[in-house]
Amino acid sequence: MSNEQLDQLRDELDSLNLEILDLINKRGELVQEIGKVKNTQGVNRFDPVRERKMLDQINEHNNGPFEESTIQQLFKEIFKASLELQEDDHRKALLV
Amino acid sequence: MSNEQLDQLRDELDSLNLEILDLINKRGELVQEIGKVKNTQGVNRFDPVRERKMLDQINEHNNGPFEESTIQQLFKEIFKASLELQEDDHRKALLV
Repeated sequence: MSNEQLDQLRDELDSLNLEILDLINKRGELVQEIGKVKNTQGVNRFDPVRERKMLDQINEHNNGPFEESTIQQLFKEIFKASLELQEDDHRKALLV
Repeated sequence: MSNEQLDQLRDELDSLNLEILDLINKRGELVQEIGKVKNTQGVNRFDPVRERKMLDQINEHNNGPFEESTIQQLFKEIFKASLELQEDDHRKALLV
């Protein structure tokens, strides 16, 4: 009975993992698009002011259970990975 | 014209950030529930086999643009934060 309950919760967790995966990758695609627009404008890809604004907005909307510091840390990792994605694209564009 | 395009992409990014925030917190709540069930069963909270299975499943569904290694790293951070959430709950339960 309790194992059934655990299995059910784990199934829900598996679905959530894949939803998060999907959104993180969608975010990656969007950041790639932004990188392309920035390249055509000659704008710098890393924008600390914009990153701070995003983190502030995320904080404002954080209702837990994760603490602000944890959420900030996770999103900073996501931002860092996204920036690397843009930089890879830029390098590839330079090589063409 | 191009700035409008950039603003629009940024609005989409802001929405995506909040969707990701929402799902990460939902995942946190679910992991807390799982922790409670495990506590009543006396089962260990950290389960490396289950974690490996989740990572494998996430890999199988990863269609990019993020590379497998990046996605694994991001999810390991999410798992770590979730486990800390369970441990906090457990400590609080012990203190009651």
